Amino acid sequence: MPETLGFIGLGNMGEPIAANLIQAGHPLRVYNRTASKAAALIANGAVAASTAADVAQTGGIVLTMLSDDRAVEEVCLPAGSFVERLGAGGIHISLSTISPAAARRLADHHRKFQVEYVAAPVFGRPDAAAARRLWVCISGAAEAKRRVQTIIASIGQGTFDFGDDAGAANIVKLCGNFLIASAIESLAEAFGLAQKNGIDPKSVAEMFGSTLFACPVYQGYGMRIAEQKSESAGFRLVLALKDINLALQAAAASSMPMPFASMVRDRCVSGMAKGRENMDWTTVIARGVAEDAGLK
Amino acid sequence: MPETLGFIGLGNMGEPIAANLIQAGHPLRVYNRTASKAAALIANGAVAASTAADVAQTGGIVLTMLSDDRAVEEVCLPAGSFVERLGAGGIHISLSTISPAAARRLADHHRKFQVEYVAAPVFGRPDAAAARRLWVCISGAAEAKRRVQTIIASIGQGTFDFGDDAGAANIVKLCGNFLIASAIESLAEAFGLAQKNGIDPKSVAEMFGSTLFACPVYQGYGMRIAEQKSESAGFRLVLALKDINLALQAAAASSMPMPFASMVRDRCVSGMAKGRENMDWTTVIARGVAEDAGLK
Amino acid sequence: MPETLGFIGLGNMGEPIAANLIQAGHPLRVYNRTASKAAALIANGAVAASTAADVAQTGGIVLTMLSDDRAVEEVCLPAGSFVERLGAGGIHISLSTISPAAARRLADHHRKFQVEYVAAPVFGRPDAAAARRLWVCISGAAEAKRRVQTIIASIGQGTFDFGDDAGAANIVKLCGNFLIASAIESLAEAFGLAQKNGIDPKSVAEMFGSTLFACPVYQGYGMRIAEQKSESAGFRLVLALKDINLALQAAAASSMPMPFASMVRDRCVSGMAKGRENMDWTTVIARGVAEDAGLK
Amino acid sequence: MPETLGFIGLGNMGEPIAANLIQAGHPLRVYNRTASKAAALIANGAVAASTAADVAQTGGIVLTMLSDDRAVEEVCLPAGSFVERLGAGGIHISLSTISPAAARRLADHHRKFQVEYVAAPVFGRPDAAAARRLWVCISGAAEAKRRVQTIIASIGQGTFDFGDDAGAANIVKLCGNFLIASAIESLAEAFGLAQKNGIDPKSVAEMFGSTLFACPVYQGYGMRIAEQKSESAGFRLVLALKDINLALQAAAASSMPMPFASMVRDRCVSGMAKGRENMDWTTVIARGVAEDAGLK
Repeated sequence: MPETLGFIGLGNMGEPIAANLIQAGHPLRVYNRTASKAAALIANGAVAASTAADVAQTGGIVLTMLSDDRAVEEVCLPAGSFVERLGAGGIHISLSTISPAAARRLADHHRKFQVEYVAAPVFGRPDAAAARRLWVCISGAAEAKRRVQTIIASIGQGTFDFGDDAGAANIVKLCGNFLIASAIESLAEAFGLAQKNGIDPKSVAEMFGSTLFACPVYQGYGMRIAEQKSESAGFRLVLALKDINLALQAAAASSMPMPFASMVRDRCVSGMAKGRENMDWTTVIARGVAEDAGLK
Repeated sequence: MPETLGFIGLGNMGEPIAANLIQAGHPLRVYNRTASKAAALIANGAVAASTAADVAQTGGIVLTMLSDDRAVEEVCLPAGSFVERLGAGGIHISLSTISPAAARRLADHHRKFQVEYVAAPVFGRPDAAAARRLWVCISGAAEAKRRVQTIIASIGQGTFDFGDDAGAANIVKLCGNFLIASAIESLAEAFGLAQKNGIDPKSVAEMFGSTLFACPVYQGYGMRIAEQKSESAGFRLVLALKDINLALQAAAASSMPMPFASMVRDRCVSGMAKGRENMDWTTVIARGVAEDAGLK
Repeated sequence: MPETLGFIGLGNMGEPIAANLIQAGHPLRVYNRTASKAAALIANGAVAASTAADVAQTGGIVLTMLSDDRAVEEVCLPAGSFVERLGAGGIHISLSTISPAAARRLADHHRKFQVEYVAAPVFGRPDAAAARRLWVCISGAAEAKRRVQTIIASIGQGTFDFGDDAGAANIVKLCGNFLIASAIESLAEAFGLAQKNGIDPKSVAEMFGSTLFACPVYQGYGMRIAEQKSESAGFRLVLALKDINLALQAAAASSMPMPFASMVRDRCVSGMAKGRENMDWTTVIARGVAEDAGLK
Repeated sequence: MPETLGFIGLGNMGEPIAANLIQAGHPLRVYNRTASKAAALIANGAVAASTAADVAQTGGIVLTMLSDDRAVEEVCLPAGSFVERLGAGGIHISLSTISPAAARRLADHHRKFQVEYVAAPVFGRPDAAAARRLWVCISGAAEAKRRVQTIIASIGQGTFDFGDDAGAANIVKLCGNFLIASAIESLAEAFGLAQKNGIDPKSVAEMFGSTLFACPVYQGYGMRIAEQKSESAGFRLVLALKDINLALQAAAASSMPMPFASMVRDRCVSGMAKGRENMDWTTVIARGVAEDAGLK
């Protein structure tokens, strides 16, 4: 019989992930700062905890899906937090995209309470989360990863293990977001060149998306850029910029120059300056390229 | 019965393409500056022409696969060239990656002799050419494209049509090479970050190559970069830089800023400065990133 | 008769500045974490305080010259700090190059104790400090700036006032360091082009240093780069990178894209990666340019 | 008694330079494609030649001030050009900013007619030309440079000799324009940061223009950027971009990566895309920075 789990953070991503855990048969104790977001889950059998700490059971497992380093630290570090409640044998599965440095600090903190920190950041948008089509990067202590294996398998379509270092999974997650951002910038530049030479960017997107770059990122982002749709429900610029900054901070901490990342960061900062913090990053980057090119 | 074709330029790419045309049943008249390269084709039934012009028959079709603008212009523009020999009803299928501007100039030139210029640059390395797995971009007059359709189908796995403009297919080809170069740079930066954080780049390449970036470019280049193999038989830096310069010239001609292209160009110029003109571009770009990062 | 002053931080810059205050007739109470550095000043009449707080007198003036945000905050923020000792009517002249955000936070903090924060970051190396040839940017409350006017005049050759905002002087200081870094990078690129074309960079440095760019930065840095001297006593890379990062953080906080700053930052990160953290920034930037160019 | 000189090219720069040669006592034979531009000079004693070749006298000296490589080549290379008329002992003083490669080709060409090519590109705007305040870079054969020394001295305030290589003076000229462009970009970025933090860029321009950067470029361009004046009579973008492209071509030819130059080039290409080809480059670069920053 599946284990009872705690779950903290029921935003766009957390809510569908929690729903899938219920679906997989796990009794769930949930907490969200804005309690109303838990309603649908409770209707499906989840139990509402009145504090974040209350989701935890001694020696149990708690998942968190929160927005950034500070949000994760605020539920973990104070005295009496869910981490202390978990105590010996407990595991914290941290799904958030946070800095590798914060992940390492949290792992150290948890160890004092004999709790294992398993980093498990995910790739995928809310619809992918709902469809259990996330890709999950994990890192942490081997035994803890074994224990949570089926839990993680129940929220995504594949898990990739990057070893013991609590920070490693987040490094890979940041690499991925950086690779996507670079793909967006390069597609926008290429499509600008095509458009200025009388070629429909959609036909270019179609060709590359079905040949050399026949993969989800180039197909999805390529068509979105080519069609110049401005998206409402995507990845908001502020969050995208947060991740690019995390990548550059991790890069600085390990003395790794990343000129493409620097350039994409400037593109995003320019988007912020133009008041586009709530637009999808794809739109912001592509529009920046188009404006520099005098298009539209 | 398949038409007799002329073929000029039997280098790494031209030779296997010509072989596939023979395979498809076309009688072939071939010419190469270094005649010895034609030996294998002649053994398979091709007829050696003693001059480039001699490969042409009135109203026929000639394919060229040459290294750059100048090489194509040198066989096309002089009085008595194969283009004049083709004359009314003739078609020149130009497989080379050349500048869109040169393609347009050639189309204008050919028109004086009632010859159609069909641009047909290809994606793929020599092994892909041999395996008939090239992707072909075409542009030019509609009727001419119809006539050469099966010929082009016999050398690749797919054809993409970008309209009437003789320069269009080359614009798309340059977009493609630029996208690949950007992917290489971004992969090299991401893998550097991973490596400096104790993560094996191969595991990162494997994950992204089987998920978000499950496509030939990221799989092939990703693994080559992660394994830090230096390749002998790849795409030589001088040729890669030639193509990036063509992209930037086409961009300048249409007032299209391409900051990623500029940055990759600087990376390649640095490779030239370090004496790596004959190394594969993947190795050169990745090594440049690694050296800036103090790796090895 | 000149006022008694407190002085905290007797490093390469602080020590000669403090000496000039003594020279100007100010009785001085000094503190440095490493007490031995105060010896020369004490021999000249300064009084050694046993704690940082002890340098302060009620309603008096304290100057600090410390390495970064944290160092300044550590002497200012704890209960019982020199700021509390100053109390009503006190002034803190902060000479350090710190973040504008930290300066603003400190000003807010000080206000609780009725202490004014006058930001006064300086331009100039230790020898310029000794020669009273520093340039000083100041910002803060008007009356406080008036009271410290002659004090600041006694340590430099000119003072520039940037208004009330405690962060303003540091913004200007960061602008200045960014301008210098950009000048270094551009000189190194230009000299590389000259050198590769058989022209002695020194002759180029001489021409521009006596014509279009006849100013201290281009003359001084220009000749240093052209002569490829590696300097021991200059501005260490770690400190330079600290300042460039401060500029980029201030830029991010105000949504200001600074692509040149991003590029210089990558150049410095690369220098860190190559183990050059203790070399002069001029040497590190110029050597990075030269290595990318395959020189030496 | 001063020697009779030929002068070809009476544009914004050529006309005031020619006037100064008359002022210095030189009988002048002038030619301009648009003959009307010679009127003022003829009124002052110049003799109008009916063809470019006609300005030359056997063994004499001809100066040219033309817009680009092609314009210079078109007056020099055809049979019967002024170069042939000069013949043995003749000297061509080429004031134009052209590519070092073209300068070298011209020197080779001239040698066949025993004519010496002295490269003498100048720094300064039309008003500086009128005021004899140009700075002149020269290179070429030593004896020829000696013979033209007083002529060149009469058009500027200083001459800098870069040796025998006909291309050298133009390399230095391109270095200079690149350094100015980099200074403009960096000033615009710094002023943007200041402005976004409530600091008047003029006060920043004043400080740096009177201290660290107390030189003509930073004073002149600094104030122009800070005041956001759009200039009519300056250095038009198309010409500025031409020079930056020449610098990058010379850099590519000598395998010299110049990332700042690449970035400034993209900035100028963006200006072209926005239809600003006839605006002053300072305005274009500064406005590009401001737009990326969401200012105005």
